[in-house]
Amino acid sequence: MAEAVVLLDLWVSPFGQRCRIALAEKGVAYEYKEQDLDNKSPLLLQANPVHKKIPVLIHDGKPVCESLIIVQYIDEVWSDGAPLLPADPYARAQARFWGDFIDKKIYEYGTRLWKLKGEAHQEAKKEFIEILKVLEAELGDKKYFGGDAFGYVDIALVPFCAWFYTFETCGGFSVEAEAPKLVAWGKRCLERESVSKAFYDPVKVYETLKQAYGFE
Amino acid sequence: MAEAVVLLDLWVSPFGQRCRIALAEKGVAYEYKEQDLDNKSPLLLQANPVHKKIPVLIHDGKPVCESLIIVQYIDEVWSDGAPLLPADPYARAQARFWGDFIDKKIYEYGTRLWKLKGEAHQEAKKEFIEILKVLEAELGDKKYFGGDAFGYVDIALVPFCAWFYTFETCGGFSVEAEAPKLVAWGKRCLERESVSKAFYDPVKVYETLKQAYGFE
Repeated sequence: MAEAVVLLDLWVSPFGQRCRIALAEKGVAYEYKEQDLDNKSPLLLQANPVHKKIPVLIHDGKPVCESLIIVQYIDEVWSDGAPLLPADPYARAQARFWGDFIDKKIYEYGTRLWKLKGEAHQEAKKEFIEILKVLEAELGDKKYFGGDAFGYVDIALVPFCAWFYTFETCGGFSVEAEAPKLVAWGKRCLERESVSKAFYDPVKVYETLKQAYGFE
Repeated sequence: MAEAVVLLDLWVSPFGQRCRIALAEKGVAYEYKEQDLDNKSPLLLQANPVHKKIPVLIHDGKPVCESLIIVQYIDEVWSDGAPLLPADPYARAQARFWGDFIDKKIYEYGTRLWKLKGEAHQEAKKEFIEILKVLEAELGDKKYFGGDAFGYVDIALVPFCAWFYTFETCGGFSVEAEAPKLVAWGKRCLERESVSKAFYDPVKVYETLKQAYGFE
């Protein structure tokens, strides 16, 4: 079927990268429209009037917002490709739980590593390392979070691997020392073209975040 | 099939009420286990080691956490009852979007009405009324959020109707004056046994929240 698929996005956004990876995994062709968040386009404001944020997937003129909702939508619409969520309801609930955990924790606690100073910064570092360890334990010795198949939870987390260098630099710790399995998993994910094509040099990401957030 | 379904919950929790309503809508029999959050049970800590929060649905010994994930799980497992989420992928994405909006906004901004004072309180009041108006606009003249059928978004929001009295009392505004369609929708939902059975007197809820949060 002939379909118009448009993604409103920003190159460095881990949330947008989730959508790019999911679309690539499903082999969906789409038009990528980079957005200027300092000067939001009428198209973005019209497509996401509630949050006014990227990413937005516009499918045949109809917008879908919020990255993990977009990933689920992609999985349901292009259902002939390899599934991103498992078929079993319990496994689906577990995948949603970990996607939600990543959504609630990584960005919020990760950005505290440069937003907070002094004692609050030390607390943030402790909390962030704890979050990494929870994910490390959940991954365990599996190839991917869902087992042998790359899927929803991997897509939720893997874009943040490009932020690890920034988290380490601002936090004063090594992700690999704290969560070696997670780092190995990230490298495994990067072997997939869907992931590597959405991935940027962590040093470039650091320089961009440094400028965006104004940290030293 | 013989199944053991247990709900770890707290009577006043709108998140727990979502699960109770979904289970009632599907006609699922379950054992309700009220939890003491000041003295968390080994069962709760074992069932939800990551967040240590209620509600938790334990189905045949396997725990599912996070209320909207539980509601989706209930919908997928007991799929012979009336569906809570629509079948169409776009309508499902929209339902998830509004469930997520409610999750991100109502509790966070509602509790600011008693947590903040002075100018910050006035700002919180303005923001909370804006959130109500966004929901009022989305509901419009529909019977339920999804149209003619009671479903996922209704379940996400309706437990907070028992908090409206507290929001009004602490915020110094009338929900009905700001969002009359939302109040009428809440009354319509309350005509359903699934909702009325999970509902408590708003004044009792106010007294409980007052004690729990220590506001005047």
